[in-house]
Amino acid sequence: MVQLIDQRFLPHQFVIEEVRTLEQMATAIRDMHVRGAGLIGVSAGYGMYLAALEAAERGSFDERVSSAATQLKATRPTAVNLSWALARQLETIARGNTADEKVTLARRTAEQIADDDVEHCRMIGHHGLKLIQSIASKNAGRPVNVLTHCNAGWLAFVDHGSATAPIYAAHDSGLPVHVWVSETRPRNQGSKLTAWELGEHGVPHTVIADSAAGHLMQHGNVDLIIVGSDRTTYTGDVANKIGTYLKALAAKANDIPFYVALPSSSIDWKMRDGVNKFRSSNATPRK
Amino acid sequence: MVQLIDQRFLPHQFVIEEVRTLEQMATAIRDMHVRGAGLIGVSAGYGMYLAALEAAERGSFDERVSSAATQLKATRPTAVNLSWALARQLETIARGNTADEKVTLARRTAEQIADDDVEHCRMIGHHGLKLIQSIASKNAGRPVNVLTHCNAGWLAFVDHGSATAPIYAAHDSGLPVHVWVSETRPRNQGSKLTAWELGEHGVPHTVIADSAAGHLMQHGNVDLIIVGSDRTTYTGDVANKIGTYLKALAAKANDIPFYVALPSSSIDWKMRDGVNKFRSSNATPRK
Repeated sequence: MVQLIDQRFLPHQFVIEEVRTLEQMATAIRDMHVRGAGLIGVSAGYGMYLAALEAAERGSFDERVSSAATQLKATRPTAVNLSWALARQLETIARGNTADEKVTLARRTAEQIADDDVEHCRMIGHHGLKLIQSIASKNAGRPVNVLTHCNAGWLAFVDHGSATAPIYAAHDSGLPVHVWVSETRPRNQGSKLTAWELGEHGVPHTVIADSAAGHLMQHGNVDLIIVGSDRTTYTGDVANKIGTYLKALAAKANDIPFYVALPSSSIDWKMRDGVNKFRSSNATPRK
Repeated sequence: MVQLIDQRFLPHQFVIEEVRTLEQMATAIRDMHVRGAGLIGVSAGYGMYLAALEAAERGSFDERVSSAATQLKATRPTAVNLSWALARQLETIARGNTADEKVTLARRTAEQIADDDVEHCRMIGHHGLKLIQSIASKNAGRPVNVLTHCNAGWLAFVDHGSATAPIYAAHDSGLPVHVWVSETRPRNQGSKLTAWELGEHGVPHTVIADSAAGHLMQHGNVDLIIVGSDRTTYTGDVANKIGTYLKALAAKANDIPFYVALPSSSIDWKMRDGVNKFRSSNATPRK
């Protein structure tokens, strides 16, 4: 059994969901009980462990496990961490000789994916902290204003988060830091999740309308922008929550450092050009 | 008695409010029963007429009328059309010899402000239509995609609107036009008002999250951007709904024509530099 936070109820309720089957995990990913680059990968890892358990009980092991990977992959087709975790599981499971061995391997791999995720995020915090320290040293006691978009916090991973890791590291080390949390329409991951996370951790923050980011930058109220990445091409293009591009343009226009915090698991080594690949077919006007 | 559309109930209910006193008009402007550059000016014009009526009944005419102007001005201190309409009323009322004459002048001036507003917007449509025609002629039958922000439609004026005037003119002349209506957080004037207006008029449109504007521009789905202006400096800087700046940056980055449609009544001839004057004191981080 796997426990996860059902994020649909935040910030109003903190609900732990108990996931016992592949089917339940597929639903949890597809219906966004869990979301966020890292967490989707980790959830997929545990989904494969649950699938291996079921396969060991019911027979046709390899067939069931392979079809589980296909099923999980379809839950969030654009999440590169998902494919990455599934490939890692399939590869490891194949190394087992018996069903029991394969189940054990699947469990260990799921745990390893989760542990790696924590360590990657911790290291993002370690590196990113230096950026905040360097700004703080010039700020003469004024809080460092960091702007972020969507939720790339620990809710989106297992711990620390990507974009938030440097913020937590700075806050924990006693640096004065304040976060502009952009609401993130249409699903409000900023106002619902990031604000809740930061509040639980005692980090000063203000929720803003997505559109306010430019005004704040133009008026010197943003020192640094850190966002996460849903998928990163190997040429360095980043696909992230809608609105990241507008913030990047405003950061450039106002000479504000703009960082994308990401673990290597979100890099798609098969994808070269972000813009063309992401040209979306649903952007056609309604008739 | 003055009738106005109480916009707080749109798009769910179409409520006509009957305004009989200066006090009621001040409330209607302050609490945003009416909003939008032109309409605030027109409402202030009629507010002064109601104030003149009250002053004629109660005595101390000049004192009451002058204090009414102060009261109305405080309802939306940043609206330049408001100051403009109040100044126009005070100047005209001063020309009357008796209280009755002054009331008549106030009424005529209010009507004139409203009629001028309609004519200005009609002319904006006349001029702006050419922009849309020129794009349509290259579009080979594909609808011209216009993006707008907030509500600068007829609800914000008396008729036609500013940003929407060219759109209505194009639609009425049979050109295929489709409007990306940006939601406009935090008050949703786009999704509540502009979408309703366009829907009532039968203009094809799609409500989008404010953040989606950049993505649509980047992918060639926007031919033209037209927004309104709350206040225009005489050097050409425009103060408009939060988020206009981000859209302007994205338009520049993607080489998309960006127009501000405005009547001369929204130009502040005393204001030179938009950015410095609008540096806001409430943008300080929460402690």
